[in-house]
Amino acid sequence: MDSHSDLELQVAVAKVSKYAVSESGDTVETIERPHGGLSLVLVDGQRSGKSAKAISNIVARKAVSLLADGVRDGAAARAAHDYLRTQRSGQVSATLDIVSVDLATRTIVISRNSHCPVIVVTGPDTTMRLLDEPSEAIGVHARTRPVIAELPIAPDTHLVVFTDGLLTAGERHGQSFDLPAFVLDHLQARQPVPHGSGGPAACAQSLPAFQAGTLADALLARAVELDQGRPGDDVSVVVLSVVARQAPDAIRRLTVRFPIPAGSAGTF
Amino acid sequence: MDSHSDLELQVAVAKVSKYAVSESGDTVETIERPHGGLSLVLVDGQRSGKSAKAISNIVARKAVSLLADGVRDGAAARAAHDYLRTQRSGQVSATLDIVSVDLATRTIVISRNSHCPVIVVTGPDTTMRLLDEPSEAIGVHARTRPVIAELPIAPDTHLVVFTDGLLTAGERHGQSFDLPAFVLDHLQARQPVPHGSGGPAACAQSLPAFQAGTLADALLARAVELDQGRPGDDVSVVVLSVVARQAPDAIRRLTVRFPIPAGSAGTF
Repeated sequence: MDSHSDLELQVAVAKVSKYAVSESGDTVETIERPHGGLSLVLVDGQRSGKSAKAISNIVARKAVSLLADGVRDGAAARAAHDYLRTQRSGQVSATLDIVSVDLATRTIVISRNSHCPVIVVTGPDTTMRLLDEPSEAIGVHARTRPVIAELPIAPDTHLVVFTDGLLTAGERHGQSFDLPAFVLDHLQARQPVPHGSGGPAACAQSLPAFQAGTLADALLARAVELDQGRPGDDVSVVVLSVVARQAPDAIRRLTVRFPIPAGSAGTF
Repeated sequence: MDSHSDLELQVAVAKVSKYAVSESGDTVETIERPHGGLSLVLVDGQRSGKSAKAISNIVARKAVSLLADGVRDGAAARAAHDYLRTQRSGQVSATLDIVSVDLATRTIVISRNSHCPVIVVTGPDTTMRLLDEPSEAIGVHARTRPVIAELPIAPDTHLVVFTDGLLTAGERHGQSFDLPAFVLDHLQARQPVPHGSGGPAACAQSLPAFQAGTLADALLARAVELDQGRPGDDVSVVVLSVVARQAPDAIRRLTVRFPIPAGSAGTF
């Protein structure tokens, strides 16, 4: 047993539709990787409502189905692009993020086809960096490919991935959302005293239990607040964290929760 | 707006591997239905460990991929059977349950290819029934087909779906797990006073917030306890509940959480 056995993975997704639109144009799916671990796919279809949903759905489906077959992430992203471009004759775009926790390579792989950065915070001193290298949406131009980054699976690693509804929250009201500052504040609030060499076990004892869902919910709530309760776009937030193991059990858990709409729409 | 807008869906999965086996032979996946709603696929591959995981993985992948394409549940189950039987020359079996919350038909569809019953509890008076019609595992015999049941999406509907590790918990120690009684006790403990005509809104106010995850965790914890801390088989529990809406927000949430193992194994 190496120190990795003291770690746990937490993934949390929180999503809301554009105000007065019943169906989000964003799609999020998770899938098990055949060689161990999990992949998460986040797609934002062009525009909003039913047409955007149809687009994000076919892109997510294609990516998830390839990842489940063991196709590497970069190839799955390229294939999703080719597929959308063929299906819609290059007329329709979508952003696509794939985040994989790959237990075969023991890395986290982030493939971006989106102008939205991914926020990465690592280590007990919460060092932050942005994955914001220029990156192109899929579906329109020939030979589009993802920008890929890879991180080791290590304790105190947090990734925040989102669609542009989070980035632009508040803009209509002359406000902006300083996402990196918000994320850092949230994560640093968990650390009343700096600690260095205590290791994961010591962290787990001295800190309140970390919940990725609390950060995802806080980000989404702040975005909705900045939009004065009426989101100007679909907003999706994903928080993926590797933290010291907090439960003594080896139980794997998954939960899904959503309101059942009055109409027939209501995909996740 | 009809009364359905006052409802929410909660799905919770809790899984644990057989004692001293790092990899569960069970696979659970969820996928969005293209016409609205979600499907959950639960597969128990024959035997345990790596070989069982390989089997449950290909079955789940096939079923999920067809469901994502909009294939109806019964056809997806038949196809998963044909696929496994072809791939493994009829030598290997798996149980397969598909549970779909179909917002197009506004029903919950349960397709069983398993000897394990599905527990269904409905209404404020917690009426219980078992879906336990004889049903055959997939992969071995020709023309195997699922046993299908359909329920309306209605408030206070709870389904408990599981693999046979839950059914047989404690058997090695001369104990048995009365699952229906345990589920009823858990659900009735939430209802200090009987209520009839109050409707969903009244329920939400008078009862503590319902969490499908609490029931799934309680069932799994009891199974592990009956097996004296060393599960004799892979155990997976799924609780799917339709309850009065508890949150005023329209946020959709998904969480995944699991320990990261020291080795390379560790699929969900």
